[in-house]
Amino acid sequence: MSPQQAFWRTSFASGITVTEKPRSVTVFAPASVSNVACGFDVMGFALEGLGDDVTVTIDSGRAITIAVLNHLGSMLPVDPQKNTAGPPVAALLKRSGRNIGVTVNIRKGFASGSGLGSSAASAVAAAVACNALLDLELSMRELLPFALEGEMVASGAVHADNIAPSLLGGFTIVRGYDPLDVVRITPPDDLWCAVILPAGTIETRVSRSLLPASVPLGQVVTQTGNIAGLVAGLLTADYGLIGRSLQDVIVEPARAHTIAGFYKMKQAALEAGALGCSISGSGPALFALTRGEHSCHQIANAMGNALSRIGTPWSTFCSRVNTHGAVIKTEEPNAAL
Amino acid sequence: MSPQQAFWRTSFASGITVTEKPRSVTVFAPASVSNVACGFDVMGFALEGLGDDVTVTIDSGRAITIAVLNHLGSMLPVDPQKNTAGPPVAALLKRSGRNIGVTVNIRKGFASGSGLGSSAASAVAAAVACNALLDLELSMRELLPFALEGEMVASGAVHADNIAPSLLGGFTIVRGYDPLDVVRITPPDDLWCAVILPAGTIETRVSRSLLPASVPLGQVVTQTGNIAGLVAGLLTADYGLIGRSLQDVIVEPARAHTIAGFYKMKQAALEAGALGCSISGSGPALFALTRGEHSCHQIANAMGNALSRIGTPWSTFCSRVNTHGAVIKTEEPNAAL
Repeated sequence: MSPQQAFWRTSFASGITVTEKPRSVTVFAPASVSNVACGFDVMGFALEGLGDDVTVTIDSGRAITIAVLNHLGSMLPVDPQKNTAGPPVAALLKRSGRNIGVTVNIRKGFASGSGLGSSAASAVAAAVACNALLDLELSMRELLPFALEGEMVASGAVHADNIAPSLLGGFTIVRGYDPLDVVRITPPDDLWCAVILPAGTIETRVSRSLLPASVPLGQVVTQTGNIAGLVAGLLTADYGLIGRSLQDVIVEPARAHTIAGFYKMKQAALEAGALGCSISGSGPALFALTRGEHSCHQIANAMGNALSRIGTPWSTFCSRVNTHGAVIKTEEPNAAL
Repeated sequence: MSPQQAFWRTSFASGITVTEKPRSVTVFAPASVSNVACGFDVMGFALEGLGDDVTVTIDSGRAITIAVLNHLGSMLPVDPQKNTAGPPVAALLKRSGRNIGVTVNIRKGFASGSGLGSSAASAVAAAVACNALLDLELSMRELLPFALEGEMVASGAVHADNIAPSLLGGFTIVRGYDPLDVVRITPPDDLWCAVILPAGTIETRVSRSLLPASVPLGQVVTQTGNIAGLVAGLLTADYGLIGRSLQDVIVEPARAHTIAGFYKMKQAALEAGALGCSISGSGPALFALTRGEHSCHQIANAMGNALSRIGTPWSTFCSRVNTHGAVIKTEEPNAAL
């Protein structure tokens, strides 16, 4: 029984049927790392603890009203056509056939423009909340295309490599888009991720403009070998193979110069024992994968120290790879609805 | 205990130690399918039953003498520097430090130039036979670089995507070459391969000249998604995912025109239920993967019928994916050696 089904339980007390419907649902959707070195526009994984809370509430109006509740999202648009939470909500309202208004309150857990799938987290949380609120009973996989409508707003193109892990958890492969085909991989138990967020932001649109239009065939072979090795390493819990496969010969070299101290941070992470280290999404955040929590903190510290030496402010975050994706936190009832 | 160790057993009968050393070893190495649609120069798998027998025998000379025993290899060079079996034997003789001569007798199980790793099968069989004959006790993985020396002769470059599966069996990923990093994947139990060999041959060198020098980034993403999906499908026995992933947007379109009736055969295979179908190596052989033996024969027949309609002679072959690679068939003793 799904959380929303549990909530919509029917009570037969006193012989009177009372169906409690939620008036308001709050969902947490995690931050995510996309590209994952060799998997540009294909691979992603979700983090634990870092992410957005989105509350969708049925109100008395007929429109979608968006508010961003904390300073981390102070620069975000609240126009429902421009905030990434808007289009998923609009699409799900349309799907429900209900002519109602909703308020979408977003509490950002991390800054947008960090390379950690900020736009995806808000879109995913809004979609999952709406699904519960409107009792649509869509599965997490069925919610994928709805959440993707938000990503269109953020990057101008359909990219599922943050949406998929934020929604489903674990590692995800976007095998293809026509039709959308997402493969979920449960990561090895002890796989941890150290993230460093240097101060500053990078716009995805700008970062994409740095990409090469075409790639020499030899580099394609190298990248193909690495992504194949990464998937095999994840599925067989071969940490060494995961590490050897975390190499990006195409995108990282084109974007590294946009992040001050990138190679110093990467070197520090590897010297501190990281399996591999690269840019998270389009940056400026970096991620480093490792085995175990202790190593993760050592790597985060090493990356931070490297960045301090060049004077850039930073914050770090350590997390096991998240295996559950977005979760419903609270549902507020309104039996009178 | 390895077969050669078993053979080198020491007998203590009558209190006299007699060590029997092999004078001649025969090894079977299987044909293999490389590229596997989305895994150009990276993926390969081995076939059952089709392959080369190579017998390496210590002779009274000081040189390497190569002979090809059957008509399938009648066009092959017997110069030890030009036949792909020569360099692995030379390298292993050097490794052994023994100043002896050997005769290498090759019985081809399939024609060279077919796209089924003919040069690799001979090189692998020769390397495995030499390893046993000279009691080098190298593991199959340790033999990889020796067998690769033969592939240099055949294609003018180091390509391990036929050598690795012929030696190790199963599916193999060549993750990288610097250093050589081969990942072996045991395929799902019921994965079968239908192969059609149209009459005629294609030289690997010529076929490589047709490849694009560079690839649009969008195609790289598509190919990356497919190889990631293929590896995940193989490791989770998800036949549907294997099928959806068997797409090649880079190499197949560049080479398809070199094989008369390619698209007709492919269409026939897919209509007969193949998970996917593409060129084996550089062709002209095609492979189609499927679930189960019955389906495999139906697909082989369908491809054959399609080719008959355009008048090209052909042969077909059905095989479970081979999981053991090269095997020692016989060791002939010579206690007096």
